[in-house]
Amino acid sequence: MKLATLNDGTRDGKLVVVSKDLTRFCPADNIAPTLQAALDNWAECEPKLRNLYTDVEHQSVPCERFHEREAHSPLPRAYQWADGSAYINHVELVRKARNAEVPESFYHDPLMYQGGSDKFLPPRADIPLGDPAWGCDMEGEIAVVTDDVPMGVTSEQAADHIKLVMLVNDVSLRGLIPGELAKGFGFFQSKPSSAFSPVAVTPDELGDAWKDSVVHLPLMVDYNGEPFGRAEAGEDATFSLAELVAHAAKTRDLGAGTIIGSGTVSNQGPEGDPGKPVADGGRGYSCIAEIRMIETIRSGEASTRFMRAGDTVRVEMKDRDGHSIFGAIEQTVVDI
Amino acid sequence: MKLATLNDGTRDGKLVVVSKDLTRFCPADNIAPTLQAALDNWAECEPKLRNLYTDVEHQSVPCERFHEREAHSPLPRAYQWADGSAYINHVELVRKARNAEVPESFYHDPLMYQGGSDKFLPPRADIPLGDPAWGCDMEGEIAVVTDDVPMGVTSEQAADHIKLVMLVNDVSLRGLIPGELAKGFGFFQSKPSSAFSPVAVTPDELGDAWKDSVVHLPLMVDYNGEPFGRAEAGEDATFSLAELVAHAAKTRDLGAGTIIGSGTVSNQGPEGDPGKPVADGGRGYSCIAEIRMIETIRSGEASTRFMRAGDTVRVEMKDRDGHSIFGAIEQTVVDI
Repeated sequence: MKLATLNDGTRDGKLVVVSKDLTRFCPADNIAPTLQAALDNWAECEPKLRNLYTDVEHQSVPCERFHEREAHSPLPRAYQWADGSAYINHVELVRKARNAEVPESFYHDPLMYQGGSDKFLPPRADIPLGDPAWGCDMEGEIAVVTDDVPMGVTSEQAADHIKLVMLVNDVSLRGLIPGELAKGFGFFQSKPSSAFSPVAVTPDELGDAWKDSVVHLPLMVDYNGEPFGRAEAGEDATFSLAELVAHAAKTRDLGAGTIIGSGTVSNQGPEGDPGKPVADGGRGYSCIAEIRMIETIRSGEASTRFMRAGDTVRVEMKDRDGHSIFGAIEQTVVDI
Repeated sequence: MKLATLNDGTRDGKLVVVSKDLTRFCPADNIAPTLQAALDNWAECEPKLRNLYTDVEHQSVPCERFHEREAHSPLPRAYQWADGSAYINHVELVRKARNAEVPESFYHDPLMYQGGSDKFLPPRADIPLGDPAWGCDMEGEIAVVTDDVPMGVTSEQAADHIKLVMLVNDVSLRGLIPGELAKGFGFFQSKPSSAFSPVAVTPDELGDAWKDSVVHLPLMVDYNGEPFGRAEAGEDATFSLAELVAHAAKTRDLGAGTIIGSGTVSNQGPEGDPGKPVADGGRGYSCIAEIRMIETIRSGEASTRFMRAGDTVRVEMKDRDGHSIFGAIEQTVVDI
């Protein structure tokens, strides 16, 4: 099943069911007015939404043309957004760039930060930047949405609470991160609003590409119209998304509509090395910080600058037949 | 104006207007079904709610008896909860207890962490504790609720966006904090669900005790039925609540219903010293971590243990005539 939230001028938008090929939608607000409302009552809403999805696929209900640009993030605002670091290769590269160590515990105890969730950007919205010196970066990631998760669940139990999968561009202000992390309380100003893919899908939509709560497909990140990242999300995941959900629920219940992110998708190179840019035949990177690290390793200094007004990022994932699964995040940085 | 959210079995409860003396309420769901809905449309709802408050005060509308135990936290779940550290004395004491330094920047650049907001505890709900070794502590604080705050506001502008004031018990798991902070991404498992006061009030309700976006009244924290903290919230605030709101809005808009906390209210002693327990004639402490630090300074080791099943905490604030302003947070720790 594929769901989206259309921007109808309200804060929470309007829930719609989208066809598998992303061309048509049917309003679902007679089942639940918003995606949050559906998640609040998922056991009752899910079968109704799935029936509607079948009708949309069979074209047995009136549908309208779906335009990704009219979609908001599936949850335009959420009660919780927590981002993990499933792909330790990213952490290793970014820490190397900061001359910081990766503690051994990171390989069995997931890193996770509590993100701001009060106002996400729509998937086609500009990224407002107050100062180029803030070092604006994209981070291409996978995220899941849960129903109510009881405190203390195991990873196996957590897997059953993953109701939807989507993509996210976790906007990061690299210039503000070192100072903020040095204060010891984690990210705040350095993590402004993120944007999610136009469409969220149930895990079964991924077929056998959803295995052990990991998505086994490449994440396509384009930067200024060129391929920038083609990381295999199914490789080098130290933690599954279910393990990240269980980590989040260790000391408290998680409310329905909780979004948990994978962290930047990142692969090692074939020899356990940091890999190569797409232009050099490698899988590239899902954020600029990583390529800057590679450049530093190679030539002593980073040559790719962070994003400025006019720079564009596109994040998408295609199934094995080449069809877009979630629609594309497409954003342009603007000065404000 | 005083507002509360009654627990009606729904996730977001029912908005009511409460009399100044906290004895009566009148449902306000004909104005806005929930407090979040009122905040989403504050310009339109505020005058209507204020008119109803006048009617409740004049007893010119039918009212029902208000019981604090029937109230949920004013926002049972929120899109954002960010907690600052306005009272640096608390930071100094807690860091001393961890043998950690207080960087000079903390005195002009506020500490702030993004907290979980998907599921707050009601003000009279038990605090579920999975393991006594987690070191359960209370933190008595003041919190404000904003409407929509644009990115980049000044502190002066931020002050006008503070629409409501309330109290909070920011439950902390001290045993999990050092390990989590060492990972560098801030608190997550160490900050389970917080509870807020039964009633939220507009700043004008505080009269001249609301000055420069700081509450000038003592915060009363009782522990197991005994006075534990009587810290003067109007003293030793390095940052005002408006400054904390502006800090949060530096790189992004804040959505309506954002909750910003003061951090643990904490005073220095009269000589710039760490102060004394209430039993010794001092103002005491708003959390256990502070008294443990004092004990360590005095005798080489902490004697007050953290909270376990059966321990109770009460957080309240009274006006200069001795009347409760927000009602009382009253919680008991339970094993789960």
